[in-house]
Amino acid sequence: MADAVSSRRSRLTPEREAELLEAVLDLLREVGYETLTMDAVAARTKSSKATLYRQWGSKPELVAHAMRCTKPMSLRDIDTGSLRGDFGMMVEHSDDAQMAKDTALIRGLAHAVHESPELHRALRDLLVEPEINGLQLMLRRAVDRGEIAPDRPALEYVPHMLIGAFIALPLIEDRPVDRAFLADFIDAVVFPALGA
Amino acid sequence: MADAVSSRRSRLTPEREAELLEAVLDLLREVGYETLTMDAVAARTKSSKATLYRQWGSKPELVAHAMRCTKPMSLRDIDTGSLRGDFGMMVEHSDDAQMAKDTALIRGLAHAVHESPELHRALRDLLVEPEINGLQLMLRRAVDRGEIAPDRPALEYVPHMLIGAFIALPLIEDRPVDRAFLADFIDAVVFPALGA
Repeated sequence: MADAVSSRRSRLTPEREAELLEAVLDLLREVGYETLTMDAVAARTKSSKATLYRQWGSKPELVAHAMRCTKPMSLRDIDTGSLRGDFGMMVEHSDDAQMAKDTALIRGLAHAVHESPELHRALRDLLVEPEINGLQLMLRRAVDRGEIAPDRPALEYVPHMLIGAFIALPLIEDRPVDRAFLADFIDAVVFPALGA
Repeated sequence: MADAVSSRRSRLTPEREAELLEAVLDLLREVGYETLTMDAVAARTKSSKATLYRQWGSKPELVAHAMRCTKPMSLRDIDTGSLRGDFGMMVEHSDDAQMAKDTALIRGLAHAVHESPELHRALRDLLVEPEINGLQLMLRRAVDRGEIAPDRPALEYVPHMLIGAFIALPLIEDRPVDRAFLADFIDAVVFPALGA
């Protein structure tokens, strides 16, 4: 199975794959998820629909893969030796212009997710679950190092705090999240809630 | 100006006004904001469009007034003498079935808000600002009583924590907020962040 997937994937170079997924993000921003078609992606990227389906399986999966490309770095790859260092690196690798663009994209997809269970599942499997797992690994290491008490109730709510802040800020203050807000929110809310 | 508004408003009894706004919420749930028309509201409630415009001015304002009716109690009316008591009453006056219905409504409106600046403004003026002001009054009293340090950084992020949790829970755990979650989140995150 893994071999079948890897041979299926090997047909595109990483550069060509990145180019295709970037074009999907452009189209998503222009027309939104509902209106996006595999035909439009094929036309924009001068590729065949057969290639798109062979490579990604379906429109929801193609979109979820494209969304994964917006993240400069996965939380799974961060391990500095302290919780403060890990969160610091998370903030440092965030990009203000990128986050503003992501906010608009995520807003559009948040609506589409409720119309399409397939898109919901693809985004969850490819984007949300891996990042939440990465966050949980980060927190477990902090517990193991004695930086957070193992029974601290806020431990299970760190994804809610971070994802919630991302969505609530534009609603409350009418501006997208930037690095300064993220750093301040983590210091003011996340660390004290964790007792760290 | 206040007199003009009050005489404009006095043409409907409170019972009839509540009935009209309830019908607006039903229509919103059925067809969504974009598709909702003043004609449909007039037909459903056997009233004239002239009455609707005289009473509420516009579709965005009518919808914002209707959304305000979903709230069993305003935060401004809560003052138990302690922060724990105030948050406890906020949770106690929440209703699980109502919150599940509100989640679906808010999800629909969150999308419409980005298409309609008028709806955004009406919801902010009539719904979001008054509740955030109520929350800030509640927190200021707690500071005055010495329950929270006046320079506690999390003070300015309480709306972000609460509104964020409301929106993030359905995304992360695929379920709407209920009283048990709200109570647990406040104990695990909000109180420790405030050092209260």
